Amino acid sequence: MNYRMVFNTTGKVLSVESVLLLFPMLVAIIYAEWWQAVAFLITAGIALVLGVGLFVLCKPKNQFIFAKEGLITVALAWISVSLLGALPFVISGEIPHYVDAFFETVSGFTTTGASILTDVESMSRGMLFWRSFTHWIGGMGVLVFILAIANKNPNNRSMHILRAEVPGPIVDKVAPKMKDTALALYLIYIVMTAVLVILLLLGGMPLYDSLVHAFGTAGTGGFGIKADSIAQYNAYLQWVIAIFMLLFGINFNLYYCIIIKKVSSFFKSRELWVYCGIILCATTIVCLNIYQLYGSFEETVRTSLFQVAAIITTTGYSTANFAEWSAMARAVLLLLMFTGACAGSTGGGFKISRIMILVKKIINDLKCVIHPRTARVVKFEGKRLDEETLNGVSSYLTVYVFIFLCIFLLLSLDTGIDPTYAMETNFSAAASCFNNIGPGFALVGPMESYAIYSPFSKIILSVAMLLGRLEIYPILVALNVTTWIKK
Amino acid sequence: MNYRMVFNTTGKVLSVESVLLLFPMLVAIIYAEWWQAVAFLITAGIALVLGVGLFVLCKPKNQFIFAKEGLITVALAWISVSLLGALPFVISGEIPHYVDAFFETVSGFTTTGASILTDVESMSRGMLFWRSFTHWIGGMGVLVFILAIANKNPNNRSMHILRAEVPGPIVDKVAPKMKDTALALYLIYIVMTAVLVILLLLGGMPLYDSLVHAFGTAGTGGFGIKADSIAQYNAYLQWVIAIFMLLFGINFNLYYCIIIKKVSSFFKSRELWVYCGIILCATTIVCLNIYQLYGSFEETVRTSLFQVAAIITTTGYSTANFAEWSAMARAVLLLLMFTGACAGSTGGGFKISRIMILVKKIINDLKCVIHPRTARVVKFEGKRLDEETLNGVSSYLTVYVFIFLCIFLLLSLDTGIDPTYAMETNFSAAASCFNNIGPGFALVGPMESYAIYSPFSKIILSVAMLLGRLEIYPILVALNVTTWIKK
Repeated sequence: MNYRMVFNTTGKVLSVESVLLLFPMLVAIIYAEWWQAVAFLITAGIALVLGVGLFVLCKPKNQFIFAKEGLITVALAWISVSLLGALPFVISGEIPHYVDAFFETVSGFTTTGASILTDVESMSRGMLFWRSFTHWIGGMGVLVFILAIANKNPNNRSMHILRAEVPGPIVDKVAPKMKDTALALYLIYIVMTAVLVILLLLGGMPLYDSLVHAFGTAGTGGFGIKADSIAQYNAYLQWVIAIFMLLFGINFNLYYCIIIKKVSSFFKSRELWVYCGIILCATTIVCLNIYQLYGSFEETVRTSLFQVAAIITTTGYSTANFAEWSAMARAVLLLLMFTGACAGSTGGGFKISRIMILVKKIINDLKCVIHPRTARVVKFEGKRLDEETLNGVSSYLTVYVFIFLCIFLLLSLDTGIDPTYAMETNFSAAASCFNNIGPGFALVGPMESYAIYSPFSKIILSVAMLLGRLEIYPILVALNVTTWIKK
Repeated sequence: MNYRMVFNTTGKVLSVESVLLLFPMLVAIIYAEWWQAVAFLITAGIALVLGVGLFVLCKPKNQFIFAKEGLITVALAWISVSLLGALPFVISGEIPHYVDAFFETVSGFTTTGASILTDVESMSRGMLFWRSFTHWIGGMGVLVFILAIANKNPNNRSMHILRAEVPGPIVDKVAPKMKDTALALYLIYIVMTAVLVILLLLGGMPLYDSLVHAFGTAGTGGFGIKADSIAQYNAYLQWVIAIFMLLFGINFNLYYCIIIKKVSSFFKSRELWVYCGIILCATTIVCLNIYQLYGSFEETVRTSLFQVAAIITTTGYSTANFAEWSAMARAVLLLLMFTGACAGSTGGGFKISRIMILVKKIINDLKCVIHPRTARVVKFEGKRLDEETLNGVSSYLTVYVFIFLCIFLLLSLDTGIDPTYAMETNFSAAASCFNNIGPGFALVGPMESYAIYSPFSKIILSVAMLLGRLEIYPILVALNVTTWIKK
């Protein structure tokens, strides 16, 4: 394995983090939170030393890497950035225990939004800014990660597992170099965030709040700064956030298509239509189930759409305590947790394109039993899928199900959870963290926190968030001992 | 499609049912339950008329059938037998609503053991006998069904989906004709049931109780005749039933190997070892979680092993209210619900061999990422698995997960369930019925019943039981409209 290349890249990532830590430091200074500013400075210093150290010490002899190195680099980057990013919380004393701070930071970078904070409003401005800023950075990181997968050599079988038949082709033709594409995606991401900030400001939200919520929405993260998430903001702001959550759940390459004036490609995307269809159906079902709880038609629709958008895009904001909704409304939200957003977006979850491919595969299998002699082709977005891709998606489902069940089982070891609610709590906590959503049901509902869990469970959930965010394989490869043995 | 062949076979099955209905009639007569005896006689008459009618009217022009016809015949047989088998309950007035009676009968024939009865002890002897007898018949039916799949032409791709790499090869060599093999399996089944009855009688259980419980154990069904299932019987009887549940969860072909003096094949079965390993681990975990609830070491071990055996073999008997156990103990049992027993047994669930194959596939995929240039072979029971089989198992998992989620969602529509417990109740009810176990958690725990559900939910759960028992595809094929259209 090309160790030097792996550590060299990790060094680069840490150096970038040290620069990014200066933003929350600036915020802390503006609000005269001196001790917080120092905490950020110290962490930035450590990140810089470690980053530059790794970068200089591990000059790669060659740039040649296999899929394995790529996956490990991704895993290492996310883990080391989280390990360091947790320090300001501990140094400032606002989250005294390191495990808690690590959980919160992983939750940030993985754009999950699950929190151990029981009183978020007592936190300093600087720390809350950093917490939400990690969402935004994480969202950006995911965009590159997806791109890296899509641009791998198509003959490399190992990559088929990770590919949710994502962006690739459409973009490839226009911007053949990965750097250009990354730049384009970043620009879209930044511009959309800026537009959101302006719209929030226009609705009367203060600048600080607007920035923080824009970060949470863009990264499909979900960290808020109020105890009741978005509930206390006005209807206009809730509509804006709901719509932008949905927009950030769309494949970013489709936006790229619009920019390069290929608007028809945008509307031709089957995944987009299915995404809209699921949102429409889910919102309708939720509306029918909760209308008696809310005063007006507008409020019912807004609350339903907001929650559906928050869950399907894996953002996790809330305007209502959906953990107290009817069984059907909760069941729909639970399933949406697994559905996730479109491939190629900043959202997590299983991804709609994967589900579409699997459904087509089931139908195909069934056809194959009923009419054994007809030709069988599975198509997606107008293209024929080869066996490799189909099997890759099936394999992904398999490992996804197994890992999810393991997380659920390990969480059940926690004896601190009230047995009456334990199954719903643990199951939804596992689903929520693994799919990078944030809130769950019962004791981890939107008005509760993950503080009830033991440190062991928090570590399990942190790993779950990393597994979910990085599409499982990078973390599995990094955790596998044989990966690290030289041959 | 060869309609005549399908209906002809269904007619045969119904004729057999009319004969089988005479057994509970005899029991009713013995206990002087005259009206019940009449109910059985009427049903037997209807079954005979319908059966012979179909048999005579649909004389097949040729015997040639495809997989499709086979699957539909299986589905039709199970459905029609259940539709008719429900009649005695309705005619006798002991279960006045037909939907309830149908649920109970499907639960019987699919060897599930889920019941809508709130007071089982008030039922007549004849009806309780019939209820348990359906388990035993269902268990037999499953043995033939498995055999039929295993003996299909191996080149028929459609069958790969259903095959959990079951019995096939070992038996094939010895008894090349399917009829001989079926006979051998039946003999094993009958002898084992007889041995169980004798052991139960020796433990002081009355003959009637012994028969009923032997039927429930052999078919891995789980219908009892006491409100507290097996809890009131003595420790010896509980041990005997626990061990026999485990024995009926083993691949029947392995018993055949012992008979033909190939004992080494029995012990070489990897699936058997994994089955034993899972049982050992699960029992230990449950013991550690419940020891403070029980008096002695023996009682703790017995209760743990009994419950693990009852769930993993999908029988569903109980000696304790496991719905009140700790979160970890319940989580283990919930996962065992999905595990299921060995392929080729009378047990339901996903089957251990399928899980083993999928785990091997995951490991293989991971190896393929880490060491891309090494040769990749997935072996099971010493034989190399081809891509077709691997993909078949993956496809099965996919359709299994989708169907399970649909059942859960449809159950959530039921507004009659207390919202606090709804998620755990609906989730475990779906898991329990789909995997043919019987009891679930919360409001469908071992001391509760399925009476709380609406008729619509009961129909959903009945379909779930049929889907689970027949390994999904036959029911899907039968429900598909295009199946019935002539080409």
